Amino acid sequence: MSDHVYSVTKLVGSSQKSVEDAIENAIETASKTLKHLDWFEVKETRGYIKDGKVAYYQVSLEIGFRYEKD
Amino acid sequence: MSDHVYSVTKLVGSSQKSVEDAIENAIETASKTLKHLDWFEVKETRGYIKDGKVAYYQVSLEIGFRYEKD
Amino acid sequence: MSDHVYSVTKLVGSSQKSVEDAIENAIETASKTLKHLDWFEVKETRGYIKDGKVAYYQVSLEIGFRYEKD
Amino acid sequence: MSDHVYSVTKLVGSSQKSVEDAIENAIETASKTLKHLDWFEVKETRGYIKDGKVAYYQVSLEIGFRYEKD
Amino acid sequence: MSDHVYSVTKLVGSSQKSVEDAIENAIETASKTLKHLDWFEVKETRGYIKDGKVAYYQVSLEIGFRYEKD
Amino acid sequence: MSDHVYSVTKLVGSSQKSVEDAIENAIETASKTLKHLDWFEVKETRGYIKDGKVAYYQVSLEIGFRYEKD
Amino acid sequence: MSDHVYSVTKLVGSSQKSVEDAIENAIETASKTLKHLDWFEVKETRGYIKDGKVAYYQVSLEIGFRYEKD
Amino acid sequence: MSDHVYSVTKLVGSSQKSVEDAIENAIETASKTLKHLDWFEVKETRGYIKDGKVAYYQVSLEIGFRYEKD
Amino acid sequence: MSDHVYSVTKLVGSSQKSVEDAIENAIETASKTLKHLDWFEVKETRGYIKDGKVAYYQVSLEIGFRYEKD
Amino acid sequence: MSDHVYSVTKLVGSSQKSVEDAIENAIETASKTLKHLDWFEVKETRGYIKDGKVAYYQVSLEIGFRYEKD
Amino acid sequence: MSDHVYSVTKLVGSSQKSVEDAIENAIETASKTLKHLDWFEVKETRGYIKDGKVAYYQVSLEIGFRYEKD
Amino acid sequence: MSDHVYSVTKLVGSSQKSVEDAIENAIETASKTLKHLDWFEVKETRGYIKDGKVAYYQVSLEIGFRYEKD
Repeated sequence: MSDHVYSVTKLVGSSQKSVEDAIENAIETASKTLKHLDWFEVKETRGYIKDGKVAYYQVSLEIGFRYEKD
Repeated sequence: MSDHVYSVTKLVGSSQKSVEDAIENAIETASKTLKHLDWFEVKETRGYIKDGKVAYYQVSLEIGFRYEKD
Repeated sequence: MSDHVYSVTKLVGSSQKSVEDAIENAIETASKTLKHLDWFEVKETRGYIKDGKVAYYQVSLEIGFRYEKD
Repeated sequence: MSDHVYSVTKLVGSSQKSVEDAIENAIETASKTLKHLDWFEVKETRGYIKDGKVAYYQVSLEIGFRYEKD
Repeated sequence: MSDHVYSVTKLVGSSQKSVEDAIENAIETASKTLKHLDWFEVKETRGYIKDGKVAYYQVSLEIGFRYEKD
Repeated sequence: MSDHVYSVTKLVGSSQKSVEDAIENAIETASKTLKHLDWFEVKETRGYIKDGKVAYYQVSLEIGFRYEKD
Repeated sequence: MSDHVYSVTKLVGSSQKSVEDAIENAIETASKTLKHLDWFEVKETRGYIKDGKVAYYQVSLEIGFRYEKD
Repeated sequence: MSDHVYSVTKLVGSSQKSVEDAIENAIETASKTLKHLDWFEVKETRGYIKDGKVAYYQVSLEIGFRYEKD
Repeated sequence: MSDHVYSVTKLVGSSQKSVEDAIENAIETASKTLKHLDWFEVKETRGYIKDGKVAYYQVSLEIGFRYEKD
Repeated sequence: MSDHVYSVTKLVGSSQKSVEDAIENAIETASKTLKHLDWFEVKETRGYIKDGKVAYYQVSLEIGFRYEKD
Repeated sequence: MSDHVYSVTKLVGSSQKSVEDAIENAIETASKTLKHLDWFEVKETRGYIKDGKVAYYQVSLEIGFRYEKD
Repeated sequence: MSDHVYSVTKLVGSSQKSVEDAIENAIETASKTLKHLDWFEVKETRGYIKDGKVAYYQVSLEIGFRYEKD
């Protein structure tokens, strides 16, 4: 494990429901093109407002994934 | 859209249920006196504890709203 | 109230369900050994990923508790 | 207490005497127009210099106050 | 000068031309409703993109203005 | 709009003329290989000096672009 | 001196009088249970307001103390 | 693994040789009284100077360790 | 030189030996797939602990590389 | 006033009495060798502890002074 | 190049015209007394307001210059 | 000791070998022109890359030294 190199990419996920759902959407999308996703870290939590309510949450994440060997 | 000016105000919302509910409470309260609420950004997430459980969440937000023309 | 001294400790709670559940787990664990827990503040929200989904959330908290008077 | 919403405003108070006096001046001025002031947090401490001495302190504060109900 | 209290408000100005023009737009708008504007500090510089070019700049400012005495 | 996922990439643009020109250069270059560029945020503004003048500005940006669906 | 290990603990002291008095209260309380207190660093300065005046200051400190050998 | 709670403590290790040696000293000392040490994060790297050379390095770390179940 | 655009990517390198070795591992891995690597900046230094010793260092880097022209 | 250039230097002042006295000591010392001192900003407030009391405060300041014209 | 030592000084330049002009003024002034100026980094962008317009910009810079060998 | 005033200067040292060696180079250079160097704090660790390897490390330090009396 100690000789792995990880790459970190930044994504922004959205959801009308919750912070956790926005995180899941970002990770699910990332997992379609990137393999070996390993961890994430929430960097910012924002959102848009419509008619006095949250229209949707926008959560930006750093996502770490393992570099493939060869 | 490029010529709008926005004002940003800081509010703290509370909830016994969840982070999202505290956000909704702050926005709902703000929308009673401010028009054209447009976005928010979570700045701090805190809370108070009672009997070994979360008594309530306190989420501080910056909320952006459009300056009225005229 | 103005003459109290508080101690602040840092904990990391985990949960497969939600950010709030990870917070509750950390506070419940802390309350078994520390008395007079008073407030918390979320410092980082991270998590681990498995098979394109969140495996579990990891939330680090600062928790404040009152120093006992002898 | 858990259903309150707070507004946070930023003020800068000045004093020739001390940091605490600059804080008191800002709060006293705010209390003339805002009700239900509840807490403050010091954000920056600056000052101006004249003839090799502090001419006056300038302390910027975030001040939280409760939104009125009704 | 040492006994003044200042209030600090946060605005976001926009411009298709430049960072400086976005700052001027925010200040000109603020000066219509607030008196005694004294200083500003740039907090974030962002913008939106269209067809591979900057559509407009968005600059968020803290603007300080003197509390009226009366 | 609420179900979009955005990717955020970091670029550094340069210009001998101005901060805005360095931003435009970075965005123009990015737009050759990335589609759906949506927003940017300035993270650092630096530059190099030659003969007591600015030789060129270097502006680092985070640029957000929409993940394609398909 | 170069082979010492220090532990850093975080405390919040309160005082109705001044920032310095709140610091002294935190250190005096810590010194009853911890030996070899060596240095402190102020992390946040806050307070509570009552009737348009500071009710009390709350200063959070990191306090360093030497690990005992044996 | 997802239901563990971790505690985070802050230590400062010293060494005349290197940053890594100062980290090792802090961890070795911590491991004498704390069990289940799991990870560390460097927060500050400082040092003292004597006769134009580094007298010793001082590295402050946050160290995470697992709460015992029982 | 003033008209170059750089891209910045974030990597995490690991090593059982030292901080420098973890940096070298990240850069060596990046250089297999990216050309024109130019500079790096250390963002975080962490590590894992086993049996009271550092098991391995984990250093996260931002690495800048030149966009190819053509 | 708009064409002045200021230089900013960093000093650390000490005092057994108070934060303000440590600031005054730093400024008084600086004024012996630097002319046109204009403003200061507190960057860190620390101190040393002896016998369960503050031995002395150490306040680090950025001090701005005008570049002489000639 | 790898054995150079650089010194970093902080300056504040002003201009009624633009951010870039304030940077140029600071660098031009610094170049009268310091040799081998090499790079700069913008740390804060502020300004003063008069009659609802920007009176002048104030940009604080860190400027790096090479230590002479001799 | 409590009445000393310290000055803090920022330097950048370089080395092809290690972070520690870059720190030593900066301090050794500073000690040729400044007396009473007392402590340092690492602010940034960067470097340049050549042929997929670290060409040299660049470590920026704040160095504190005692103001001479008289």
